[in-house]
Amino acid sequence: MEGDPALRLRVFDLNCWAIRYLSKRRQERIRLIGDRLCQEGFDLVLLQEVWSEQDYSDLKAKLAGCCPFSHYFRSGVIGSGLCVFSKFPILDTLLYQYSLNGSPYMFQHGDWFCGKSVGLVVIKISGIVFNIYVTHLHAEYCREKDAYLPHRVVQAWELVQFIRHTAKAADVVLLGGDLNMHPEDVGIRLLRCWTGLRDAFTEAKHFEGCEDGCTLIPNNRFTIKSELQPFPLGIRIDYILYKAVSSFTVKCEELKTTTGTAPGMDIPYSDHEAVMATLHVQRKGQAADVTLGTAVPALVDVLSEARMEVRVGLLAARRQRYSSGRMAVLALLLLLLQAVAVLGMLTGLAAGQPFPKLSFSLLAFLALGVLLLAAGLHLFHTIEVKMLQGTEEQMQMALRVLQERP
Amino acid sequence: MEGDPALRLRVFDLNCWAIRYLSKRRQERIRLIGDRLCQEGFDLVLLQEVWSEQDYSDLKAKLAGCCPFSHYFRSGVIGSGLCVFSKFPILDTLLYQYSLNGSPYMFQHGDWFCGKSVGLVVIKISGIVFNIYVTHLHAEYCREKDAYLPHRVVQAWELVQFIRHTAKAADVVLLGGDLNMHPEDVGIRLLRCWTGLRDAFTEAKHFEGCEDGCTLIPNNRFTIKSELQPFPLGIRIDYILYKAVSSFTVKCEELKTTTGTAPGMDIPYSDHEAVMATLHVQRKGQAADVTLGTAVPALVDVLSEARMEVRVGLLAARRQRYSSGRMAVLALLLLLLQAVAVLGMLTGLAAGQPFPKLSFSLLAFLALGVLLLAAGLHLFHTIEVKMLQGTEEQMQMALRVLQERP
Repeated sequence: MEGDPALRLRVFDLNCWAIRYLSKRRQERIRLIGDRLCQEGFDLVLLQEVWSEQDYSDLKAKLAGCCPFSHYFRSGVIGSGLCVFSKFPILDTLLYQYSLNGSPYMFQHGDWFCGKSVGLVVIKISGIVFNIYVTHLHAEYCREKDAYLPHRVVQAWELVQFIRHTAKAADVVLLGGDLNMHPEDVGIRLLRCWTGLRDAFTEAKHFEGCEDGCTLIPNNRFTIKSELQPFPLGIRIDYILYKAVSSFTVKCEELKTTTGTAPGMDIPYSDHEAVMATLHVQRKGQAADVTLGTAVPALVDVLSEARMEVRVGLLAARRQRYSSGRMAVLALLLLLLQAVAVLGMLTGLAAGQPFPKLSFSLLAFLALGVLLLAAGLHLFHTIEVKMLQGTEEQMQMALRVLQERP
Repeated sequence: MEGDPALRLRVFDLNCWAIRYLSKRRQERIRLIGDRLCQEGFDLVLLQEVWSEQDYSDLKAKLAGCCPFSHYFRSGVIGSGLCVFSKFPILDTLLYQYSLNGSPYMFQHGDWFCGKSVGLVVIKISGIVFNIYVTHLHAEYCREKDAYLPHRVVQAWELVQFIRHTAKAADVVLLGGDLNMHPEDVGIRLLRCWTGLRDAFTEAKHFEGCEDGCTLIPNNRFTIKSELQPFPLGIRIDYILYKAVSSFTVKCEELKTTTGTAPGMDIPYSDHEAVMATLHVQRKGQAADVTLGTAVPALVDVLSEARMEVRVGLLAARRQRYSSGRMAVLALLLLLLQAVAVLGMLTGLAAGQPFPKLSFSLLAFLALGVLLLAAGLHLFHTIEVKMLQGTEEQMQMALRVLQERP
């Protein structure tokens, strides 16, 4: 009923930058994060980059009083790094691993090994069903020449589709995470347009924190200053997004971010700033379908733009698949040539001439190594082509359905 | 309304066994399948093991008249092999790739390379929303010592969860595919209990086809007779399952299977038999929630049994992760030992003694090869452990929620 008291939900979201052996002062920061969460008593805590299960267990033990329910999403070699703590019982969970997530040979970037995913937890508060999503998309290592843009757009599309298909029976949808996209980037526009999710920063009645809501700021001692040079205020890549899907309204009363250092300490909680939202959920008089919050022409535009990025990625992936295939064939030819030479020697064709055994076997091993590596790359780029092509077709179908709508 | 005329839906499901270069008389059989589908005019066609995109395109061209709408699900290195043809427009699609699917080093089994998945297509007929799922689970190569059972149980659980979370707004849910499970296996009981899906074979008013509805029969010239020896009638592993989730009822009027050879030909359509169902969908007087069709104690039982299988798999995966890790460490030690020997030679400690260059480099390459292989295996089993552990935790949470239910 319209007169029902509003439900107040306090949400905390943070990319914790807790990579074992690599992140500076990790354990100290995890302790600080736990302390802050205990003090403030949030209803929902959405964390990313908690790669170490020990850190998760430590947080779980610390938050046992204020957020007794939690879930850690396992995936990939290292783990998805995603976890959720909740004041209310978690009724169900589901993990969707993105089909594309960087390259296994880019060790220095490491995204591929994390099995980047979106995690869903379902909770019910006062009879209201909440679908809570937490995610972390592929990082952007170089904005000018972003080789991972097609992968990130595929991830954004899969995130959109996963939310659309799984949130149909939810009353309130909430997404928190490090999307690695600036607010005007195509992936985030796609996400907002297609799911109808609203950005807590732009909707908040009251805001307090870093200018423009930035979550990677030069003022944080752990951020890499050179990467932020083109953006003197910093960038906003961590979000809390929400919508009500049935007879409810959600409003963001207040949004806050941390501002570089933990209160009373010399270090920040992470290299990212935390985003903290206070949402008010209220029952409406009548139900309304708000699945698509945007007019059809705008949807067509953003989807066409995203599809173009996927196509660019598809062309590049096809080129790489071809190059690696050619390399594998060349290595195989070299090996065959060597086999012929050995056969020639064995049949006595080169009798009397000295045979350079050592350099010959070194060359053979080199050829074998190149063959295996190129074949592995070829396999990887074949998968990449398949997934980009599949996404492109799905987008094409979505465009067709949109355009045929009366 | 109760008086509304029933909607009649004819569904065809077949594992086509169309592996390029490997499956016998593939192209001829694909032509035969296309001909049969054209003649019979099914409303929905769910196919598996269509690995070649050319075969899909050929079928698409042939079915352009009777099933003008189609979708091919791309995934993995080879593809998921899944596709859907429909008489009615496909409004939306989603692919969920199973997190575990055999081992990359079991080349002879090949499942890992297929990226086994479940595909969802959404269609609307006379205002009724249908969520159609098509899937293919990991094969069972040896029933007595089924090393892949834990992976198949994880897949069955992910299938359950995917259907439960995505079908909440559908009026009718339909699943077709090769589940690689006998009707009484734990995975299929889990699927039926947790989703409330009904088995068209047991529900059909009229049945015509192989005895017990078997879909792998000794009478089919392409089946491997030795594998079917313990089952003289054959086995049933291909299914059509359905349920109505809101104010609708679905009934299976008729179920048929093919029986070994295509009519008038000397070969069958595939090594599997096709399953063909005629479903009647009717609007009911009032809505009813049929999400869980089974009593709580039965759900707890089947889930506990499935969880036990996952645990057995987890123990095995942990052992294999340990063995491969130990092997990698040993290879690394050998390499270090060799490096020390080389250093000793270079510093003149063994001056005057002949150094066996060739066998030394061969040994180094061997150690390097073992190191890379063992490290790769260790990575794979780490992922396996993570996913089995994740599934076990999800099942544990589901059990807790079930038991806390009033």
